[in-house]
Amino acid sequence: MPVSKPALDPQTVATVSNTVYPEPYRSRVLPRSKRGLGDALGLTRIGINLTTLSPGKESSMRHWHTAEDEFVYVLEGEVVLRTEGGEQLLRAGMCAGFPAGAADGHQLINRSNRPAVYLEVSNRELSDTVYYSDPDVDLVWNPPHAPGKVTHRDGTPY
Amino acid sequence: MPVSKPALDPQTVATVSNTVYPEPYRSRVLPRSKRGLGDALGLTRIGINLTTLSPGKESSMRHWHTAEDEFVYVLEGEVVLRTEGGEQLLRAGMCAGFPAGAADGHQLINRSNRPAVYLEVSNRELSDTVYYSDPDVDLVWNPPHAPGKVTHRDGTPY
Repeated sequence: MPVSKPALDPQTVATVSNTVYPEPYRSRVLPRSKRGLGDALGLTRIGINLTTLSPGKESSMRHWHTAEDEFVYVLEGEVVLRTEGGEQLLRAGMCAGFPAGAADGHQLINRSNRPAVYLEVSNRELSDTVYYSDPDVDLVWNPPHAPGKVTHRDGTPY
Repeated sequence: MPVSKPALDPQTVATVSNTVYPEPYRSRVLPRSKRGLGDALGLTRIGINLTTLSPGKESSMRHWHTAEDEFVYVLEGEVVLRTEGGEQLLRAGMCAGFPAGAADGHQLINRSNRPAVYLEVSNRELSDTVYYSDPDVDLVWNPPHAPGKVTHRDGTPY
């Protein structure tokens, strides 16, 4: 029997596949399908996505948040977690967490030949700024001088 | 190979089985095993538990939060979600969300004959107060006059 709010069958939530990234970063993450479970449930203080990452794709560029804790829990398949400390393989049933303000950029990469599915969770903080860690990635997200936008590292617009 | 922070194998996190509830509510929830994944990962802005609910047990008394969004995602087994609207069966892969301030009390009940496992997630807000919805449940958690404590509805201590 179908459920109704406050319960939700994630499979009934529309998927979106978009990114704020310009090229050449855009095609490193897409297609990457997200179902916005928190939004669908009317939550405003935490964000929750059920995300499917295609083989060969990256969850994001390697990054960290100034004001949002982030948590991921792998449900199906496997992903490689890249941080300053190197790479680790996360299989279904494993998780990772990234405290707000800890300047250790992370990203997930699907190096397998099948889709990986995971939950991603964070608190929601409008002032949150995202810094990217890899020297060849020229991005900043939501800097104080350009709220809601991605800019070059030097602050100039894309 | 074992993973290390910021990754975590939940099975390496110690379980706790406790509650702030006095009897007769205490034995309605325990044993109920929780692994504090958010704490283990150093997260402070969101709380994340991996919880195992034994057959016949309740996740909590039916309640709602004044300042914390809550989200549950069922990983194994099944639970019955009770709210004002009635009861719904949630199987593995289904979820539910409870916006802060929405005065529709909820609880999960394991009416099956095997353990149910779910993730529970919330933002963390020290001022959060929890009100219990069923008339026969004489509890309030963390009221302004008794922070960090459970009291009777009329504010007197247990």
